[in-house]
Amino acid sequence: MENVMGSSVYSPVSEKVVEDLVALLGRSGVTTDREKCLAYSVDETIPRFEREYAAEAVCFPEDTAQVSAVLRYANEHRIPVTPRGAGTGLSGGAVPACGGIVLSMERMNAILEVDRENRTLTTEPGVVTADVTKAARNSGLFYAGDPCSGDISFIGGNVAENAGGNKVIKYGATGAHVLGLEAVLPDGSVVTFGGRRRKDVTGYDFVHLLVGSEGTLAVVTKIILNLIPLPKRVTDLLVPMPSLEAAVKLVSLVTTEGGVVPSSVEFMDRNSILNVERYTSLRIPHSDAAAQLIIQMDGMDRRQLWGDVEKTGDLCVRNGALEVFVAEDRNARDRVWRIRKYVAAEEWTYSMPVLSKEDIVVPTSAVAAFLTRLPRITERHRATYNAYGHIADGNIHITIFPDGIAPEEDLHELAVPLRRELYACVNDLGGTLSGEHGTGLKRKEYTDIFLNEAQRALMKRVKRAFDPNNILNPSKMLP
Amino acid sequence: MENVMGSSVYSPVSEKVVEDLVALLGRSGVTTDREKCLAYSVDETIPRFEREYAAEAVCFPEDTAQVSAVLRYANEHRIPVTPRGAGTGLSGGAVPACGGIVLSMERMNAILEVDRENRTLTTEPGVVTADVTKAARNSGLFYAGDPCSGDISFIGGNVAENAGGNKVIKYGATGAHVLGLEAVLPDGSVVTFGGRRRKDVTGYDFVHLLVGSEGTLAVVTKIILNLIPLPKRVTDLLVPMPSLEAAVKLVSLVTTEGGVVPSSVEFMDRNSILNVERYTSLRIPHSDAAAQLIIQMDGMDRRQLWGDVEKTGDLCVRNGALEVFVAEDRNARDRVWRIRKYVAAEEWTYSMPVLSKEDIVVPTSAVAAFLTRLPRITERHRATYNAYGHIADGNIHITIFPDGIAPEEDLHELAVPLRRELYACVNDLGGTLSGEHGTGLKRKEYTDIFLNEAQRALMKRVKRAFDPNNILNPSKMLP
Repeated sequence: MENVMGSSVYSPVSEKVVEDLVALLGRSGVTTDREKCLAYSVDETIPRFEREYAAEAVCFPEDTAQVSAVLRYANEHRIPVTPRGAGTGLSGGAVPACGGIVLSMERMNAILEVDRENRTLTTEPGVVTADVTKAARNSGLFYAGDPCSGDISFIGGNVAENAGGNKVIKYGATGAHVLGLEAVLPDGSVVTFGGRRRKDVTGYDFVHLLVGSEGTLAVVTKIILNLIPLPKRVTDLLVPMPSLEAAVKLVSLVTTEGGVVPSSVEFMDRNSILNVERYTSLRIPHSDAAAQLIIQMDGMDRRQLWGDVEKTGDLCVRNGALEVFVAEDRNARDRVWRIRKYVAAEEWTYSMPVLSKEDIVVPTSAVAAFLTRLPRITERHRATYNAYGHIADGNIHITIFPDGIAPEEDLHELAVPLRRELYACVNDLGGTLSGEHGTGLKRKEYTDIFLNEAQRALMKRVKRAFDPNNILNPSKMLP
Repeated sequence: MENVMGSSVYSPVSEKVVEDLVALLGRSGVTTDREKCLAYSVDETIPRFEREYAAEAVCFPEDTAQVSAVLRYANEHRIPVTPRGAGTGLSGGAVPACGGIVLSMERMNAILEVDRENRTLTTEPGVVTADVTKAARNSGLFYAGDPCSGDISFIGGNVAENAGGNKVIKYGATGAHVLGLEAVLPDGSVVTFGGRRRKDVTGYDFVHLLVGSEGTLAVVTKIILNLIPLPKRVTDLLVPMPSLEAAVKLVSLVTTEGGVVPSSVEFMDRNSILNVERYTSLRIPHSDAAAQLIIQMDGMDRRQLWGDVEKTGDLCVRNGALEVFVAEDRNARDRVWRIRKYVAAEEWTYSMPVLSKEDIVVPTSAVAAFLTRLPRITERHRATYNAYGHIADGNIHITIFPDGIAPEEDLHELAVPLRRELYACVNDLGGTLSGEHGTGLKRKEYTDIFLNEAQRALMKRVKRAFDPNNILNPSKMLP
């Protein structure tokens, strides 16, 4: 078992194993129905993987004790276990790469406590993120994690992937909101890291090691989240910019000169905007601008917020903005964000085949340089693209389309050399492979570009420290 | 080597070893002078440890390559290496518990870059924290890490201990500001985790695993910090409160009702205030109040800030404050904070022997319950105490004095059963051992109260994954 992140020799899920699992979880807690197993073996990665993966059984634990029982059993019998949230992942994190058991967390779906006095929310992992946000809001507080898929993703999946989204520049990614975790180790032992507290230096920080570990180290069974005061006012600016360089410079100036940390700074390139106009009925002002920015600010009251809006609007005008549209009320704000949503959904809208959907990060200052090099790379591979995303974090999504229609199996062959060239460029600019979608199955073959041998070896040793039999979500994150 | 956190069999620093180290670092890079070795073998833990620890040699690397060379050598020859910042620690983290080499980072003291556009600061570990703050400020930006010892501590030590301080409730502890680290593993290999970016899900989050690992996993040689806009206005309220319960309730209301996250909420109990009056010339209004709070708010301009100050002041009055003193200008603010500084410095001021200096955390809502139980515990052990600290984080410092003067060796014997009882109470209230001072040597015997067997075993396995020969700061964090 030299490569612990890769596959090992596993036992199949025999009839005897199924019987044992039923004894642990009850009849309704286990299925081996082929259709169901297949449905629980995919996520939303685009394009789909080269080959089909299939769970041999899906388990539905109802509490921590059942998670512990399944893991202890699987560990003893060397059966792979892939934890699964809502299946909205974009890198194959929840795909059972080595078969075995998919551990669906959907029945552990209770919000256990909203503690207003300590400003914490304690939840099971199978709760839809938007319901976490709602529960906090009902107590007059704010859960600031905001993955774009929040209406359908589970909070447990957000933790596993360290989900990002639109509000990271002000509030941080999911991990920044996690104060404590209950988790089950592969041997079935239950551990608690952190708690309802904002300072804790007892032992190693395993809370943030588990966040973003893509279910390879432990199964999270309880999450304690930090809540903050609910911003009562939100305003969005839609800002068409004449050049990429001017857009990038403006993003930096809003904070360094203006002293404003917006709650979102989103970017859409000309291709993105033109495609939205081409394929939807939406008409977008200055749709031929090199870039459009959405700058969102929030605050506790209009007076406080308006100072930020004025300063920022002024900076936009003085730094080349073709216009500044201010959206204060709900309707106007929805109109602005509809553009951004259509851009992200383009592949479904247009039914075009997608060569790859990327999630790279470069230092914010390098975004213009990156976007200048990008068309040369895609042209060489006879592809086109839309680029958009979270520019203040330097996190750019790129949806790459092949020239002409190619059969799905060809897409993978076309994608590999293109990605290698793209990632080399990203690495050259001081960036990284993924900002929020994860490595999973999709990107594991490319980690050598960003992590040196010592780092990869260290990851494997740490994986082994948690999971010596390599049963937990094997064959992810590293080749 | 069953217990990898404990000591192993090590080689002494022989004359040959010293020659080899001199070959690696130059004559001025190594000392074995007994006085110097002893001076580099203590920190500011109170009371001092039961026995004297002594480095056999102190090394002064000037760059990452030299750190790597020393570690590779020490790893091959099984010599313990204890990394050391400014020696301002409060738990013995930098004390060479197993002798060997102390690796002083004091010559790696360059701020490498302030990158205004990306709002990052890159620094070597041996820079005084206040100089990091100054360098950021000179670029019009703010480094929000603020350990109380910032004028004398090194930023590398802050990272190793995940230093907290007064501003955690708004800005987070040191780890919240760390975007990337360069570090050397015990085998000498150089690794980089994270970078100049605010989103990164490539590989495990080793950045935050290293933060707070007390130099037991790797030696940090470069730190990339997040900077934010510099708050231009600061206002402090000094608020005497009639009861502990009212003080705790108010702290929560400021944020949940008022929607204000103060930059600091500090607390001092009646004992603390009375001792300051007794031993200094300072006269404090309402010095017989059960508790005094300092509530600090910051903002970009007076208009924005004043809204928060008014809301908070109003909440104080409506919730039992005996008075609200508003300190806006520098002089008034200094007068307020002088009280807090005297409280923290009481043991030097009064030259009283100290039985123990504690750093516990409980959920904020449990602070009053904790402080009600505390006198019963100390009385049983014939001791008195001051309690003060970061109440919004639930992080309370307790300085415990013996009744009457006891010789130093007796202090340790008196402290052990008292601490066990104190920590059991903290654990019972859902709290933890240390919020910001660390476990180190001082608290390692008590970790079993807070971490179960599975957690302690996991820590040991992760330690082994980083440091198989257990050369790096051995015998810390766990018994």
